[in-house]
Amino acid sequence: MSVVGESYLVGLLGEGVLPSLTPPLHEREADELGLRYLYRPIDLLALDGAGAPGAPGGTGDLDATIARVLDAAALLGFDALNITHPCKQRVLAHLDEVTPSASAIGSVNTVLLADGRRVGHNTDVTGFASALRDGLPGADLGAVVVIGAGGAGAAVAAALLDAGAGRLTIIDLDASRAGALAGDLTARFPGATIDSAAADALAARLAGPASAVTGVVNASFAGMHTHPGIPLDPGLLHAGLWVADIVYRPLDTELLRAARAAGCSTLDGGGMAVGQAADAFRLITGVEPDRDRMRPHFAAMIREGR
Amino acid sequence: MSVVGESYLVGLLGEGVLPSLTPPLHEREADELGLRYLYRPIDLLALDGAGAPGAPGGTGDLDATIARVLDAAALLGFDALNITHPCKQRVLAHLDEVTPSASAIGSVNTVLLADGRRVGHNTDVTGFASALRDGLPGADLGAVVVIGAGGAGAAVAAALLDAGAGRLTIIDLDASRAGALAGDLTARFPGATIDSAAADALAARLAGPASAVTGVVNASFAGMHTHPGIPLDPGLLHAGLWVADIVYRPLDTELLRAARAAGCSTLDGGGMAVGQAADAFRLITGVEPDRDRMRPHFAAMIREGR
Repeated sequence: MSVVGESYLVGLLGEGVLPSLTPPLHEREADELGLRYLYRPIDLLALDGAGAPGAPGGTGDLDATIARVLDAAALLGFDALNITHPCKQRVLAHLDEVTPSASAIGSVNTVLLADGRRVGHNTDVTGFASALRDGLPGADLGAVVVIGAGGAGAAVAAALLDAGAGRLTIIDLDASRAGALAGDLTARFPGATIDSAAADALAARLAGPASAVTGVVNASFAGMHTHPGIPLDPGLLHAGLWVADIVYRPLDTELLRAARAAGCSTLDGGGMAVGQAADAFRLITGVEPDRDRMRPHFAAMIREGR
Repeated sequence: MSVVGESYLVGLLGEGVLPSLTPPLHEREADELGLRYLYRPIDLLALDGAGAPGAPGGTGDLDATIARVLDAAALLGFDALNITHPCKQRVLAHLDEVTPSASAIGSVNTVLLADGRRVGHNTDVTGFASALRDGLPGADLGAVVVIGAGGAGAAVAAALLDAGAGRLTIIDLDASRAGALAGDLTARFPGATIDSAAADALAARLAGPASAVTGVVNASFAGMHTHPGIPLDPGLLHAGLWVADIVYRPLDTELLRAARAAGCSTLDGGGMAVGQAADAFRLITGVEPDRDRMRPHFAAMIREGR
């Protein structure tokens, strides 16, 4: 049983996070370790509407909401917040300190609150790296397309380049956002060839006769239960590609189903979800969780339809 | 083990609450019941100084701090706050609804947060009533002096009158506060004789030749570890009195030691502390806690010097 009086209080700030599996994933592992641990989703869509995409006021309101949640969490003694879409990049302006690796990709998914300070970390990079290593061992990283230039996309791209990807193309509905990320990555990884393209250029990149693309990662929220759909034309998929998705709810996305049908090897979002959670758990508690225990916990929750 | 995903998040708002035993008392009972429960002290003295007694701005700052904490707790999904000194009365203005019994004494020690509403309750009345019944069975309630006209004093007085006290005198350093409470109680309990006096009249009330006082309750914070001392001249104590203290940290106050030395029967603050906690726990969770299990838990924590 937990030690009375010692405890960890964590929140998950983002849009549509009420059904997220990350809170129960942390809580169950804490139970196994005998730690009192409470992890609450803080859903932007349930917070008075302010800051929710489409709400009056737009981006200004989101910044105000992030500030309000961070202030409240610090005031009430939260130990940490995990940060997810659409706050991973916007949260940086509200922090006292950001680790070099999070700063490099301009994206924070974990904020530690202690001693009156707010320190941003990013465990998505390490989370995707370990998922790729374990789930698609030997994947050809010669030329990879990353769809989505948001916080997760930046993390996935950095993990791929860390792992030795030779050529990387960043695709986003917002071409300027894709371009900015590609520019940042080029500065950090001068040995790789990194470019960007708008979403409508995806077909040409994948299907063109000179296409050397070896793998595709969906790092956008397309396919998530709140944003159903598929981030590319399934007719572009072929057996020469590996396809990874970072969406984990559902675990089996429309993209992955189409990729399997086309003969691709695939990687679902569960590995990254567990990896980022395990790394965040370690940062928050100082205790190394048992990843081999977390993976079946996660799979079981998915099976239970949570 | 707790049910993952279902949880209770509670805070204790007040001054000097970091070492309070109420949070671990709730948490340990929740552990016994298999409920995920996290209860954090929110200490006014540790909150940027704003609202702390003596801080620049005085009472206006305290109201702002109460509002800030309630807003933050609602925003982040706290299920409830317990409220203690010096906020039990001031918190009423910040609530959507107050139960009739809490409203009658103008004091709230438990705020339930649900469905965007803040509802105030008071479990100090029932907590003191059960402590008195169990700890001083048969105590003569003919004429009781209550020291302290704050939130706890109002609760103790109401419990004594509910239990049949014939005559009640409210004493406070602030005579007008004592008078206001006596007036309120007279309106609610027209069959009893209720008056008030300033602190310097205590000696005359207790020691006068016509004194019919049968019992004394300290419902002020005098004697608390943060406010050491004794709320009356120990020379006024005699074997014809019973003496109760609501201070529970320390459990054995200077007042109780002096009372025992004078031959009084005594009641310490542990019973009320457990009673109010058990009633609050039931309100928060809907689950009836095991009071017979909570009392030894509380005593053990005191023994451990927590």
